[in-house]
Amino acid sequence: MDTTKVALVGMGTVGTGVARLLCEEGDRLAHHAGRRIELAKVVVSDTSKGRDIRLPKGVLTDDLDEVVADPEITTVAPLIGGLEPERTIVLSLLGHGKNIVTANKALLAEYGPELFDRARELGRSIAFEAAVAGGVPIIANISQCLSANQIMSLQGILNGTSNFILSQMESVGAAYADAVAEAQRLGYAEADPAMDVDGSDAAQKLGILAHLAFGARVHWRDIPRVGIDKLELADIQFADELGYRIRLLAVARLVDNELELHVSPTLVRANTPLADVSGAFNAVSVEGDAVGPLLFHGLGAGQMPTASAVVADLIDTVVGRTAITFRTLELWSRREAMVDARDFDQVPGRFYMRFAVQDHPGVMSEITGALGRNGVSIASIIQHESGRLGRDEVPLVLMTHQTTEGAAARAVREIDRLASVSAPSVRMRVHDAAVAGK
Amino acid sequence: MDTTKVALVGMGTVGTGVARLLCEEGDRLAHHAGRRIELAKVVVSDTSKGRDIRLPKGVLTDDLDEVVADPEITTVAPLIGGLEPERTIVLSLLGHGKNIVTANKALLAEYGPELFDRARELGRSIAFEAAVAGGVPIIANISQCLSANQIMSLQGILNGTSNFILSQMESVGAAYADAVAEAQRLGYAEADPAMDVDGSDAAQKLGILAHLAFGARVHWRDIPRVGIDKLELADIQFADELGYRIRLLAVARLVDNELELHVSPTLVRANTPLADVSGAFNAVSVEGDAVGPLLFHGLGAGQMPTASAVVADLIDTVVGRTAITFRTLELWSRREAMVDARDFDQVPGRFYMRFAVQDHPGVMSEITGALGRNGVSIASIIQHESGRLGRDEVPLVLMTHQTTEGAAARAVREIDRLASVSAPSVRMRVHDAAVAGK
Repeated sequence: MDTTKVALVGMGTVGTGVARLLCEEGDRLAHHAGRRIELAKVVVSDTSKGRDIRLPKGVLTDDLDEVVADPEITTVAPLIGGLEPERTIVLSLLGHGKNIVTANKALLAEYGPELFDRARELGRSIAFEAAVAGGVPIIANISQCLSANQIMSLQGILNGTSNFILSQMESVGAAYADAVAEAQRLGYAEADPAMDVDGSDAAQKLGILAHLAFGARVHWRDIPRVGIDKLELADIQFADELGYRIRLLAVARLVDNELELHVSPTLVRANTPLADVSGAFNAVSVEGDAVGPLLFHGLGAGQMPTASAVVADLIDTVVGRTAITFRTLELWSRREAMVDARDFDQVPGRFYMRFAVQDHPGVMSEITGALGRNGVSIASIIQHESGRLGRDEVPLVLMTHQTTEGAAARAVREIDRLASVSAPSVRMRVHDAAVAGK
Repeated sequence: MDTTKVALVGMGTVGTGVARLLCEEGDRLAHHAGRRIELAKVVVSDTSKGRDIRLPKGVLTDDLDEVVADPEITTVAPLIGGLEPERTIVLSLLGHGKNIVTANKALLAEYGPELFDRARELGRSIAFEAAVAGGVPIIANISQCLSANQIMSLQGILNGTSNFILSQMESVGAAYADAVAEAQRLGYAEADPAMDVDGSDAAQKLGILAHLAFGARVHWRDIPRVGIDKLELADIQFADELGYRIRLLAVARLVDNELELHVSPTLVRANTPLADVSGAFNAVSVEGDAVGPLLFHGLGAGQMPTASAVVADLIDTVVGRTAITFRTLELWSRREAMVDARDFDQVPGRFYMRFAVQDHPGVMSEITGALGRNGVSIASIIQHESGRLGRDEVPLVLMTHQTTEGAAARAVREIDRLASVSAPSVRMRVHDAAVAGK
């Protein structure tokens, strides 16, 4: 049986998981790959540091040149994370003829075009299954298994940290800050979870999926996004009364040949597949014009789920499948975008709104008037007796009929200027199950 | 851009769907495949018959030799269905150097070893994504995306006809026969649905998945299976009272290095992913040792979902990915089985049991005595007041704690011999959510 040598750069959580699979499950991987995969080198900055895994003698090194100089090492997974020095290392490895396997969505979201162009020039490949949705093989499914389809929509829960926090708030009634602390305690959130909870991480992943599925070329910073970091427990409770859960949903959807793109906390009807995604799980609902609705559900992060995706990419690369897919798809090539992003103002949707209003006559008429002037019509209203928000205010919660982002935003801005309303009001999208096909 | 010629044999529902994608979505497929795919020939028995699709002139033929004789046609999808003449056609096409794409799970379940050996001898490939779970790309996911994992268990709803019938019974309270008639009216069940409702179809699919995931070599006829064709509405209603749905579940699970394999109507806790699979949908829950639990959910049959899988296979074959996977996996090679099937008697499980008992003192003690003698302990009991079954009988429903198939079967046999019980009693497995990881 042939042997192919691979290397890792970086040995944090994911790197250790990958090394464990390569070192401890060699027979299994050989069986699935039709050849032995030898972990020849692991490059780390400090070789004397204690590790959770014992590597064969000579594998651990602090010298990247040992990887670069070994022509038998054909494929390398840089697993440091962050933008630099990862970008420079990837470019250097490509330049020395190595194929790349990466789990770094931030790197692809920022430098995808540069890195993919360079790989193409040099006849190398970049595999990136682990960059989106961790262990859920959504990249392979979109780029390969669904190749007969025009994807019509993608709706994903792509950030496990946010989903864990939302699940905590909804299941134990924890306030946002307490839920974040619990997520940090359990290792589901980093010390600084800003990119996770403000929607940036999900937007980076959505940008990658939208490029794969629709040929869109939208920088993640241009994807309209709202995180869960301003979410109040009251809204989770009102959503529950209305029969909904709140999920941080990343959406890419073809509408009249334009691509609707956004990340936002969204009300999803309870007991539907996306609402049932709990804790650190991820899920992606895909609608293809031939295949219809498909749902993929699994762990979106964590050492071994992510390692599962990295090792699958290593196998695909050494057996030659990645090279074919990479050549075929021409990702981030200089080709023009196949679809343009829809003006966010024009994106359709139903909305949940919560206003803190003074409990006196005439307020309701002012609010409904402002909605009406902006063409927003009301589907349902909840107004409880006063006392819930404390002070002299009462919460007024309503669900709109179908309107647009622009109209809903303008209505809320107008309402926020009313003397009898305490700004800022809350506005969230409501998931349209009919469009999701399920 | 290069062009590759492909051909179809048979133009029923799925063949028409495949032809439609190839003829009407050529640009899309070329974009996803990096080359144009030309439908060069479609072989049918009667070229004069009306068709739902207009093919380019010269494509339709009743002569298989036109395919065989054209060396530019590299890949052929025989889509007739059934065992013969499909088997002979596949062998002939392989003999003439063609790669095969098939949707025929019965053919693979019966002749997989012969066909795969022949393809290997000749250096050709067989792709079969559409053979299991229709549009859900479970074959690619198990054989490729999860290649870093030891699969620990597969639990699938693999027969859309049965699932539709169960959904009908549970949502509108239809009796079995009426639900079957409705399924036939809507095209979800064939005129003779025997193979679907008796568990054979699911067992054929499970056999294929178990071979892929575990290297098991079990003929589908040797997989213990119970269908839904004896299911009574009363059991669906009792299950509902207990908080469960009944699903026809196909299970392959590693237990102590042996493979537990069976197909049976199973109580699945309501509001869990498998219980939420409704209508003609399929789902497969996979547990990998690295990736953890994954769920795939989508349409398991129908013209375009199945065509989506066939066309994905055609693309994978013409671009060369299938050849790599086929060579690597050595499916149904003469290699020994990697795992043996567990003696069904020893398969663990919890059970739902329903007995029709005479409403007089002492019956309960006879039943609990028989259970106890066989080592089956009771977790919960429902006994309603009499009248529900008519006659003088009352239904006694109970759920057991964990026991084995053998012990549960022996207990029920002993109970069925009691004078105060009307045999046969009902016994169904209860899904163990903990083992499924979700």
